[in-house]
Amino acid sequence: MGNTFGRLFRVTTFGESHGPAVGCVVDGCPSRLPLTEETVQTELDRRRPGQSRIVTQRKEADRVEILSGVLDGLTLGTPIGLLVRNEDQRSRDYDEMREKYRPSHADFAYDQKYGIRAWSGGGRASARETIGRVAGGAIAQLLLRQRYGVEIVAWVETVRDLGSAVDPDTVRREDVEAHIVRCPDLEAAERMLTLIEQVRKEGDSVGGVVQCVVRGVPPGWGEPVFDKLEADLAKALMSLPASKGFEIGSGFGGTLLRGSEHNDPYRADATGRVSTSTNHSGGVQGGISIGTPVTLRVAFKPVATVMHEQDTVTVRHENTTLKGRGRHDPCVLPRAVPMVEAMVALVLADHSLLQEAVRGRAEGWGEGLPSRTIGP
Amino acid sequence: MGNTFGRLFRVTTFGESHGPAVGCVVDGCPSRLPLTEETVQTELDRRRPGQSRIVTQRKEADRVEILSGVLDGLTLGTPIGLLVRNEDQRSRDYDEMREKYRPSHADFAYDQKYGIRAWSGGGRASARETIGRVAGGAIAQLLLRQRYGVEIVAWVETVRDLGSAVDPDTVRREDVEAHIVRCPDLEAAERMLTLIEQVRKEGDSVGGVVQCVVRGVPPGWGEPVFDKLEADLAKALMSLPASKGFEIGSGFGGTLLRGSEHNDPYRADATGRVSTSTNHSGGVQGGISIGTPVTLRVAFKPVATVMHEQDTVTVRHENTTLKGRGRHDPCVLPRAVPMVEAMVALVLADHSLLQEAVRGRAEGWGEGLPSRTIGP
Amino acid sequence: MGNTFGRLFRVTTFGESHGPAVGCVVDGCPSRLPLTEETVQTELDRRRPGQSRIVTQRKEADRVEILSGVLDGLTLGTPIGLLVRNEDQRSRDYDEMREKYRPSHADFAYDQKYGIRAWSGGGRASARETIGRVAGGAIAQLLLRQRYGVEIVAWVETVRDLGSAVDPDTVRREDVEAHIVRCPDLEAAERMLTLIEQVRKEGDSVGGVVQCVVRGVPPGWGEPVFDKLEADLAKALMSLPASKGFEIGSGFGGTLLRGSEHNDPYRADATGRVSTSTNHSGGVQGGISIGTPVTLRVAFKPVATVMHEQDTVTVRHENTTLKGRGRHDPCVLPRAVPMVEAMVALVLADHSLLQEAVRGRAEGWGEGLPSRTIGP
Amino acid sequence: MGNTFGRLFRVTTFGESHGPAVGCVVDGCPSRLPLTEETVQTELDRRRPGQSRIVTQRKEADRVEILSGVLDGLTLGTPIGLLVRNEDQRSRDYDEMREKYRPSHADFAYDQKYGIRAWSGGGRASARETIGRVAGGAIAQLLLRQRYGVEIVAWVETVRDLGSAVDPDTVRREDVEAHIVRCPDLEAAERMLTLIEQVRKEGDSVGGVVQCVVRGVPPGWGEPVFDKLEADLAKALMSLPASKGFEIGSGFGGTLLRGSEHNDPYRADATGRVSTSTNHSGGVQGGISIGTPVTLRVAFKPVATVMHEQDTVTVRHENTTLKGRGRHDPCVLPRAVPMVEAMVALVLADHSLLQEAVRGRAEGWGEGLPSRTIGP
Repeated sequence: MGNTFGRLFRVTTFGESHGPAVGCVVDGCPSRLPLTEETVQTELDRRRPGQSRIVTQRKEADRVEILSGVLDGLTLGTPIGLLVRNEDQRSRDYDEMREKYRPSHADFAYDQKYGIRAWSGGGRASARETIGRVAGGAIAQLLLRQRYGVEIVAWVETVRDLGSAVDPDTVRREDVEAHIVRCPDLEAAERMLTLIEQVRKEGDSVGGVVQCVVRGVPPGWGEPVFDKLEADLAKALMSLPASKGFEIGSGFGGTLLRGSEHNDPYRADATGRVSTSTNHSGGVQGGISIGTPVTLRVAFKPVATVMHEQDTVTVRHENTTLKGRGRHDPCVLPRAVPMVEAMVALVLADHSLLQEAVRGRAEGWGEGLPSRTIGP
Repeated sequence: MGNTFGRLFRVTTFGESHGPAVGCVVDGCPSRLPLTEETVQTELDRRRPGQSRIVTQRKEADRVEILSGVLDGLTLGTPIGLLVRNEDQRSRDYDEMREKYRPSHADFAYDQKYGIRAWSGGGRASARETIGRVAGGAIAQLLLRQRYGVEIVAWVETVRDLGSAVDPDTVRREDVEAHIVRCPDLEAAERMLTLIEQVRKEGDSVGGVVQCVVRGVPPGWGEPVFDKLEADLAKALMSLPASKGFEIGSGFGGTLLRGSEHNDPYRADATGRVSTSTNHSGGVQGGISIGTPVTLRVAFKPVATVMHEQDTVTVRHENTTLKGRGRHDPCVLPRAVPMVEAMVALVLADHSLLQEAVRGRAEGWGEGLPSRTIGP
Repeated sequence: MGNTFGRLFRVTTFGESHGPAVGCVVDGCPSRLPLTEETVQTELDRRRPGQSRIVTQRKEADRVEILSGVLDGLTLGTPIGLLVRNEDQRSRDYDEMREKYRPSHADFAYDQKYGIRAWSGGGRASARETIGRVAGGAIAQLLLRQRYGVEIVAWVETVRDLGSAVDPDTVRREDVEAHIVRCPDLEAAERMLTLIEQVRKEGDSVGGVVQCVVRGVPPGWGEPVFDKLEADLAKALMSLPASKGFEIGSGFGGTLLRGSEHNDPYRADATGRVSTSTNHSGGVQGGISIGTPVTLRVAFKPVATVMHEQDTVTVRHENTTLKGRGRHDPCVLPRAVPMVEAMVALVLADHSLLQEAVRGRAEGWGEGLPSRTIGP
Repeated sequence: MGNTFGRLFRVTTFGESHGPAVGCVVDGCPSRLPLTEETVQTELDRRRPGQSRIVTQRKEADRVEILSGVLDGLTLGTPIGLLVRNEDQRSRDYDEMREKYRPSHADFAYDQKYGIRAWSGGGRASARETIGRVAGGAIAQLLLRQRYGVEIVAWVETVRDLGSAVDPDTVRREDVEAHIVRCPDLEAAERMLTLIEQVRKEGDSVGGVVQCVVRGVPPGWGEPVFDKLEADLAKALMSLPASKGFEIGSGFGGTLLRGSEHNDPYRADATGRVSTSTNHSGGVQGGISIGTPVTLRVAFKPVATVMHEQDTVTVRHENTTLKGRGRHDPCVLPRAVPMVEAMVALVLADHSLLQEAVRGRAEGWGEGLPSRTIGP
C-alpha cells in the first residue's frame, strides 16, 4: 500500500534499488498533450546520480522508456507506463547490511513491518524510488504548463547554517541550474559547495532547506476541509526521503507576528484584478489558492549514511557497530530540488483536475455574482 | 470534495458555522468498542467556545448526539453518525462581511472557487468545522487506547516568542489540562496568559506552536512510499485551520546537525528489545514507526480576525477597509490542542487498521526470521 | 467501511432501522444548484413505507432536514448533510430475532462479521438504509437534469412470471407513477397488483425485474478499464438490498445472437450526428457512453420475510424454527423503482464530474480531428 | 482514470494492444508469499492467444517479467511490477480502422471521450488489456490459496443456446482444463466446439455464459452498504470486455420463486457448524459471505469483429461500410474463463484484507457472544 499518489492525476510507482527496474504508471493524464521521452528524461537527468562531483557516483544512465499511453507524440488519455532499468548495482557494498541495521535508515522499520526486506541498496526505501516520482512529475509539469501556464521553481535555500538570498518573485529555473548545488545565489552556492566537499572528505553528511515557489496558480485550487492545497502539499513533500519539516508561506516564523502584521491585505487594481500586498499566507487561504504565488519550504535531514563507526544492532537484536560503505550523497539537497518540484507538480495537477470537475460553470454564475478573476 | 479523511478509519464531516448543525460520520470503526456520548463530549468540551476567558465567548453547549452505529454502549461496526446543533449565531455581526472580504480569511477564496459562500460566521471555513474532527478523533483515540495502549498528548509549546520547558517523555494530559492555556509548564503558561490577555485588549491576536507526543505506537505503522506516517501526519495537521508549518522529530532544527550527530543509534536491551538512544527521527524511519515516541510540532498563525481597521476589497473588487467584529479567539492555541490530538488520532487509527490488513501474519514468518519486538 | 459511494460525487450514508435516525452526507456536489428540501422529499416519498396498500405499513413520515451545504436555496459546494428521524419502531416485533437468525436475512452474516448486530428491525441491513441513497440520488438527479438534461426512468418490468410491454424510448416518469405497482403498462400492472395482494394474504412474497432507461447521456462518460460505466452501474445496482442480477443492453439474452446480429451499426444523419440503428449495447461501448439511451435491468429476489414457519438456527447454533412477524413488503419492486433511479443517478453524476475533470478541452482538439457530436 | 482496481489489494494496469508492452503494478500484496514468474505465467498461458485452434492466432508468447516486489522467491510487501512485451503486431490489418469505426467496438467511444485513439489493434480497448488483470489475479489467487484455502473454479456453461451439466460443488480446475472449450461437461464441450468452428468458418461469432464457484470463503467478507461482496463482484465482472450480464446465486431465475421457496434455511450440525440447505443466495447475505460457496454467472456477448460487411461511419461521420479483418476469436468464452477467475480473485483478495483490518478481534468478543464458525 501507499505507492499511489493523487485522486484524478494518479502516479503509482514501483521498484527496488537493486531489483531489475524502477518506474511508474501515470493514470488520469488528459489526452492530446504533446509528450516524448525527452520531456521525462530532462527531469530524470536532474535527479540522476553521477551528474556532478558532489552527488553519489553510482553509474546509472536512468534512460526512461514510455511503455504505453502515447501515440505519435500525443497522450491518449490512457495510463502512461514509464520504465527505467537499474544497471550499476554493487550489492557487495551491502553485505554487512544484511546482518546489521543502518542507523536512521529504514532497514529496521521494514523488517518490523514486513518480516522481510530487500537489504541490498536500501531496497524500496532507496532514493532510487524517487525516479518514479520525478518521471510522473515531469508529466504533471507538462500538463500545468500547457493548460494553465503554471511555473514551478525550487532551489537550495540553506545547507546546514549557510543561507542565501533569492527573490522568489523572479527566480527562474535556469538560475537554479547555473550551479551544481542548485542555489541561484552563486556566492552562497560556492560557500555551500565548499562545505559539502569538506563534509564528504570527513565521511559525514549535511542537510538543509529547499524552497519552492509556484507562479501562475489560478484562484480556486484546493479542496476544504481535509484536502486543502497546503495539506496535500505537506503530505507530498513529507513523503520524500529525508524530509523532516514543511512550511507554507510564513511557516514557523509567522508565529512571531501579530495578526495585524500577519494578515495579507487585499488590493484591487484599476481592472478589478485582486491581489494581496503581502504574501504571508503563501498563496492559499482556507486551503484554496487565491492567485498569488504559492511558497513553501522543506527541511531535509543530513543523509543517514556516514563513513563513521556507529552503534547499532543486528537482525538478531544484538548490539554491534557499523561503518557506512557504498556510494552516497554527502548532501541530498541538490538532487532534492527536482524531487520537490515533481511532488509539487503532482499535487497541483491533481487539484487542477479536481477543480475542473466540481467548479460551478462560469456561465452558470450569472449576473450580480462575485467577480471571478485571476490574481497577479 | 475533501471532507473525508482516512482510508479504513474514515471521517466525513459536514456543517457551516451558522447553518443548522455540524457533525460527522465515522466509517470503519471496528465493532464492540465501548462508546458513549460522554467519550465524545469530553473531547468536544476541550475545544468548546466559552470554556475559559481567553477563548471566544460564543455560547455553544456543543452537545453531541450519536445517531447510529452504537447499540447498548458498543460499536456495531457500522457508520457512527454524530450531530451537534448550532445555537448561538449572531449573524448580524457579519453583515459587513457579506460585502467585504476579511483579510487572510477564506472569504475571497471561497467566492473564487464556488461562486458563492456562506458569508455569515465564516461558513464552512469557520473553526466550528473542527467539531467533526474532534468528535471523530475521540473515537479514534478510544480505538487506539483500547486496542494498542497508544497515548497522545499535545500542549502549547510557544505563544509568539514565549517558550516553555516540557519533557515529552513524561508529560500527561492532566498536566496539560491544569491550565487554561494548555501549557504544562505552569510558569510559562502564566506568561503566555498575560500576553494573550494583553493582545486581546489591544484587539489583536497571536500565534504559536503546539507540540505533540505519541507513546506506545508499535513498530510497523506507516505505508511507504507516499503514505508514510509522517506524510499523513503532515497532511492531517496542515489541514487544520491556521496551521502554517509542520515538523516531525528534529524538523528544521535538524538541518543544523551533521549526519553523524543526527543519526539515532539502535540499542538492544538484555531481552532483545530494540530502541534508539536519541530520537531525532521522531519515531519514524522510512515512513514507518519504529516503536519510539512519535514527536511532532505544528505552527499556528495569529488568528486573522483583529479589531483593527485593515485594507481589503469588496465583492465587486473595489478597494475599501474593514474592521473585525464578532466574538473570536485572540489566540487559537489552547483550543488547537484537542484538535491536534484528534487529527493525530485519526491518522494513527487509520494506519493501525492498514497494518492489520497487510501485515505478514506473525505465524507466517517462522524460524530464523527477523525478530519482531515492540520498542520502548 | 463501504458506506461511501462515488469518487467525485460522493454519498456517505449512516443509520440503523431502529436507531435514532438515518441520513447521508453528499460531498462533491457542484455549487449554485437550486436545492430545497422538497427536491429530496419528493423522492423520499416515492420510497416511503405506507405510501400504498401493497407496501409495508410502518408509519414513517420520513421528513428530511438539510443540515448543511445550502444557503438561500443554492448549493454551496460544501457537503450537504441530510437527516431523517426514525419514528415508528416496533422493536417488540423483533424479540424473537434476537435469539434466532432469519433465513436469507443478514442477521447471521452480521454476527459472523462484527460479533454483534442491531437485531431489531434489521439494523443497518434494513431497507431503511436506502433512505440515504434515495436522498443523495435526488441531488444527483438534480445535477444531471440541470447541467446535462439527463432523464432517468425506471419501472417494474416483471413481477414473478408476469411481464409487461413498455417502450423504453418513450416511457416517462409520470407514466410510471400512474399506478401503485409502478408498471406503466396498466393492464400488466393490474395483474401484478392482484398477484401481490394474493401473495400477501398467503404470508408469502414475490420478486421481479426493474428496468431502467437513461436518455440524454452525452458520449464520453465512463472510465476504462475498471471503472467502465456498466461496471459502476452493476456495482451500484447490485449493492441494493435483494438484488441478484444485472444486465446492460442485451444482457443474458444477447448471448443467443450471433455477432453479425448483435452488432449495432453506426449511422450518421445529414448533420453529421451519429447514432446506432439498434441498441444491443445499451448505450455503452468499451465502458464509455456513446450518446444512445443507456438501458439496464435489475433482478430482485422475493423478500426474505415470510409469515411461514421456516427452519433456522439460534445465535448459539442450535436448530430451531422461526415464523416471520412485523410489517414488511410482500413485493419490494414498487419501492425499488426510486432506489434504482437513485443509484443510476449517483453513478452518472460521478462520471459526469470525472469526465469534466479529464476530458481534452474542446478547443485543444483543433482542426482535422475526430468530430465530437452528441448522439440521439 | 479507471485503471486501478481494489482498495487494499490494488492492481493498476497499463498498455495498448500495439504499443511496446502491457503490464500491471500490484500494490498491497502481503509480504512473505512465495512468488515466482511461473505462478503468473501459468495463468497468462491460459488466456494467451494461439493456445488452441479456436482462439485468435496472434503469436504472442506473453512471457512475464517480475520487475520488483520479490526477493529470493518471496514477496516483499512492496509493489510488484509485472511486464509483458508485445511482439506480433500486424498494424497493417488495421489501416481501414483508422478511418472507419468498427461497429460495437470502442473506437467511436474513445474518439468521443479523448479526441484521439490508438486505432491499431483496438489500443487500450483490446483484450490484451486483460493481461494485467490475469497477472494480478494470479497473485491474488496465490494469496487466497495460501492464507485461506480459497479455491476459484470458472467454466463455460453455455455457448449461444448450447448448455451443459456441471456440478458446482465438485468441479475442479483440471476438469475445466481437460477441453479447449473449457467446459467440463465433455459432451457439451464437443457440441460447443463444433458450433464455434462452424461460426468461425462463416466469419461470424458467438457468445455465451461463464459460471464460477468459489469454495472456502470464510464468513464475514464483504462491506455493507455499497461495497457488498456481490456488488464488487458485479463491478469486477462487468468491467471485463464483452460482458453484458451478471448474476449472483439465483439471479434472474430467482425472481420466479416465492420467498418461502427462495429462502435458504440455516442448519447446524452436531459441532455447531452452520450451513444452509439450499444456496439461492449464492454464498452472501446482506453483502457478506456466510461460508457457503459463492456462485456467479457472467454473460459475454458475441465478439464484435465479424468478417461480414457492416454499416458504419467514418471518423468524419460519413456513412460507409466495413468488413472485419485481422486475427480474432470467434468465441471469447474459453479465454474468458481465466479472466473471470482473475477478477473474482482480485475482489476476494481485497475483501480478505479489508476484513483483516476491521474485524473485531476474536479475543475481544468474549463470553456469551455469538458463535463464530466457518461454514461448509
